Amino acid sequence: MDGAGDSAVQAKVTPQDRLSALLAEDMAAVNALIRQRMASEHAPRIPEVTAHLVEAGGKRLRPLLTLAAARMLGYAGGDHVKLAATVEFIHTATLLHDDVVDESQRRRGRPTANLLWDNKSSVLVGDYLFSRSFQLMVETGNLRVLDILADASATIAEGEVLQLTAAQDLRTDEAIYLQVVRGKTAALFAAATEVGGIIAGADDTQVAALRDYGDALGIAFQIADDILDYGGSDAVIGKNTGDDFRERKLTLPVIRAVARADAGERAFWERVIERGDQREGDLAEALAILRRHDSIAASRDEALAWSARARRALDNLPVHPLRDTLSELADFVVRRLF
Amino acid sequence: MDGAGDSAVQAKVTPQDRLSALLAEDMAAVNALIRQRMASEHAPRIPEVTAHLVEAGGKRLRPLLTLAAARMLGYAGGDHVKLAATVEFIHTATLLHDDVVDESQRRRGRPTANLLWDNKSSVLVGDYLFSRSFQLMVETGNLRVLDILADASATIAEGEVLQLTAAQDLRTDEAIYLQVVRGKTAALFAAATEVGGIIAGADDTQVAALRDYGDALGIAFQIADDILDYGGSDAVIGKNTGDDFRERKLTLPVIRAVARADAGERAFWERVIERGDQREGDLAEALAILRRHDSIAASRDEALAWSARARRALDNLPVHPLRDTLSELADFVVRRLF
Repeated sequence: MDGAGDSAVQAKVTPQDRLSALLAEDMAAVNALIRQRMASEHAPRIPEVTAHLVEAGGKRLRPLLTLAAARMLGYAGGDHVKLAATVEFIHTATLLHDDVVDESQRRRGRPTANLLWDNKSSVLVGDYLFSRSFQLMVETGNLRVLDILADASATIAEGEVLQLTAAQDLRTDEAIYLQVVRGKTAALFAAATEVGGIIAGADDTQVAALRDYGDALGIAFQIADDILDYGGSDAVIGKNTGDDFRERKLTLPVIRAVARADAGERAFWERVIERGDQREGDLAEALAILRRHDSIAASRDEALAWSARARRALDNLPVHPLRDTLSELADFVVRRLF
Repeated sequence: MDGAGDSAVQAKVTPQDRLSALLAEDMAAVNALIRQRMASEHAPRIPEVTAHLVEAGGKRLRPLLTLAAARMLGYAGGDHVKLAATVEFIHTATLLHDDVVDESQRRRGRPTANLLWDNKSSVLVGDYLFSRSFQLMVETGNLRVLDILADASATIAEGEVLQLTAAQDLRTDEAIYLQVVRGKTAALFAAATEVGGIIAGADDTQVAALRDYGDALGIAFQIADDILDYGGSDAVIGKNTGDDFRERKLTLPVIRAVARADAGERAFWERVIERGDQREGDLAEALAILRRHDSIAASRDEALAWSARARRALDNLPVHPLRDTLSELADFVVRRLF
């Protein structure tokens, strides 16, 4: 744990930065492959849209997980690069479709593709990237890997639909929330680490450990994101606060508060979430209710528990600098809340 | 060729009906598998949307092609059923996304899913079906089949994007049109027949013949559809006439007419297609121009040539009642224009 005085320095070199440094050569190959495969001979609109998104400096966390898993287990072949590009393409395809579904205007600090071009392009270019990811993974010729990525794709799509119907519905409980989180984040994290291990010939215990790590990391990451959307540990309004509230998404802090609501609070949540009748000052009121029920702290404890589970899963993997960095990463995704 | 007096009777039992009858048992298994796999334990919105589309009585032409190819080559296993369901899921996923992209209101005589639910559901349920198709094909464990279907998916998505950018652009020529048609129709027809043969252990000549048949059938089918959108051989306005014109899509009849346009006609096409400034009477004027340049007849000749190519491809396949029916089908998809 770092003292508060180090946090500014620490923020400059994150565990993810260290992963990037340790895997710099592999990541260069992944980026080259992504650029090569996102092209289209016939439809120039495709590289325009994908370049906008892919070159926008996303964190490339998922491909790093695949590369780290494979290298930690001593892989010396080249298929981990293909699989890393595969998971990034799947991720990018889901971002394009998410932005259409959420009617988003900004992503990674830039206007979204649906805003710059149109929803049509985002839907179809997303489909194209999904197909390209499929071609890439088939090239590995590893049926177990294909099975895992096919299942992950179905879980992702199912989670997105579930989120659509669970939004605006106060009956959404923690079990449904966990299902949504697995779909929108953890399924691809888990598949990313698992396929990295499989391609490296990991044994069953190691594969299970990698899967557990990715799953728990993804859940911790998403809970932390959902907490940050309500202003983080302090629950105060910042520039990125309140998107989920405005979109009437039920995330863990609100689910906890709804479960403990008195009659007046219940009426408030019904108005702003179920009926979508939101007025000036409602976000501040929501944050006050979250503070009253300690919902943020309870959600943070939940994220910490998943983070600890991710770190424990690593015990079943070989001692390696990458393992240490993955452990630090699991700590970091929640620690950013403090 | 049938006399005109027989056409009403002939319309009642089409070659596709005969395919359905010959493959009734297999198709029952495909339909059961489709119903089973379109379900979702967690997200009830998924089967609602898919049931609306899948149960609406689509023609199931693509799965019939896969089953016919496999059975014609003596296949006795069960994977052809999985592959037939796979191609129908891919097709259904593309329909859901197409209706979002085209802002369609009706499909198969019923309101579209994007109208009944919303665009979000159509995008995400389409993604779900695409993932389900992927799981199904992976279950066959046949890497060659996976390779073909991955390539077909990429060609489909690329063709859709190409169509998006080629629409409203009078520079769209017959080569681009063919690319679009392969993407929107022929790629999946060709993959459907090819994987049926591969799963049955067909030799290289037979696999190539099946691929050629599906490709040529799909192109003939789509050109005929595009001709029917301009009223068929008579080029007169009917109830289904003019959708492509209103959406400013450049299909073969118009591409031929644009290539032969005088200055006045060119100005007309620029106004209605490029600028989208369409007025009362413009469709009738478009049809008059098509008739003047014999564009419909020339397009029909093109469709007939592809139909003949499809039938010739069958020469390399074993004598079989299914082969005869596939031959009749290739004839029928264009003959419906007469």
